Amino acid sequence: MTYRLYYWDGLQGRGEFVRLALEEAGADYVEVTRGDEAAGLGTGAMMARLGSKDEAYPPFAPPFLQDGELIVSQTANILFYLGPKLGLAPRDEGLRYVANGLQLTIADMVTEAHDTHHPLAGNLYYEDQKDAAKVRASDFIDHRIPKFMRYFERVMKQNPASEDFLVGDALTYVDLSMFQLIDGLMYAFPRATKRFGTQYPKLAALHDRVIARPRIAAYLASDRRLPHNEACVFRHYPELDKTAR
Amino acid sequence: MTYRLYYWDGLQGRGEFVRLALEEAGADYVEVTRGDEAAGLGTGAMMARLGSKDEAYPPFAPPFLQDGELIVSQTANILFYLGPKLGLAPRDEGLRYVANGLQLTIADMVTEAHDTHHPLAGNLYYEDQKDAAKVRASDFIDHRIPKFMRYFERVMKQNPASEDFLVGDALTYVDLSMFQLIDGLMYAFPRATKRFGTQYPKLAALHDRVIARPRIAAYLASDRRLPHNEACVFRHYPELDKTAR
Repeated sequence: MTYRLYYWDGLQGRGEFVRLALEEAGADYVEVTRGDEAAGLGTGAMMARLGSKDEAYPPFAPPFLQDGELIVSQTANILFYLGPKLGLAPRDEGLRYVANGLQLTIADMVTEAHDTHHPLAGNLYYEDQKDAAKVRASDFIDHRIPKFMRYFERVMKQNPASEDFLVGDALTYVDLSMFQLIDGLMYAFPRATKRFGTQYPKLAALHDRVIARPRIAAYLASDRRLPHNEACVFRHYPELDKTAR
Repeated sequence: MTYRLYYWDGLQGRGEFVRLALEEAGADYVEVTRGDEAAGLGTGAMMARLGSKDEAYPPFAPPFLQDGELIVSQTANILFYLGPKLGLAPRDEGLRYVANGLQLTIADMVTEAHDTHHPLAGNLYYEDQKDAAKVRASDFIDHRIPKFMRYFERVMKQNPASEDFLVGDALTYVDLSMFQLIDGLMYAFPRATKRFGTQYPKLAALHDRVIARPRIAAYLASDRRLPHNEACVFRHYPELDKTAR
């Protein structure tokens, strides 16, 4: 079964959390918007699905995943759906809800990271909300990163099955997403995250272990992994980073 | 089995989406923070759980639900977990992921509604970000409410099983949450939502049908239903509403 992943071409964005799970599992998937229009793929195919007037249960926004007839939307929901099929969810049923709760908390932080550069409106240019962005980014760096990361570090420490994973005793999609979250924050806020390794040692070690996994390493080195850029949720605008001291 | 719901006392907030499902199902639940400290309840009991240094998988924030030993956090996750147990989820497995995708889209809109009054930082007072709030609220009213609501109206129209529900052919927790979202928007932005019924007739009819359900009607008339207020995600600040014309 070939999965079809629909997401904006040209950026990591929220689609990247899904890609990492598909890549780690060696799953067969098609990146629809990067495909050939002649084969019914490309951005037009995604827009047609989003705007369809007769599709049952159309998605609100990318990313969404097609598995046969079923369309699953929302990043955390896609991962909740895929996790067991890819061998990247906890075996225990209760722990699957724990994993989903953690994934949704990661999603909340991703939204907040996005809003550092667009606090007033997604419809306005960054340049037209730069002053507000500076206030929001400063609060994000001083209060929100520590609050979220102290929490996730504590979750690893208190995981009764293993201190090497966020949930349970084996790698799950939540660990892959945590790598991506940390990676994005380090790209966007290099000065603010300079001491990440000493402040959050378990999370930093998890980040490094994920990078070293053979399939993830191969993916990150491939041209399927797009570089970070300023069209993404994680944007490096030096004026929003912590002031150099 | 008595469920324990943990949420801030004194406001509807995100906890209300869970309460509506529990109430519609006539489920046995305890509202922990409204309980007696002598019985091990109260806000202190919630804070102890949030701050615990040895709890396996502590939640990041309220609301969270305790079912026996299991703690489930994040509103949409709690509803995904409870839905089948309460008879408020689609029977079809695939449609459960459709329901969860819709619920997460509702959650995204709730976050955006919150950010209309706190666009710069949750840590700052509203009074200290009022100008930014006016810009964000204006964008929310002009662009985001129409974008989300046109989408949800379309989902109802294109639901192949019934035009009376968002997903499938019977009431689900997503319909209850949609009532709460609309109710909150009408409270916060009475002028901007004045024509809601003509603009989004299917959603407005769903809202009215939910209110008329006997258990929901009884709940809304009880003192368990707290009034809307300005500690909640939906706040009525007249200066953020659409200008009167």
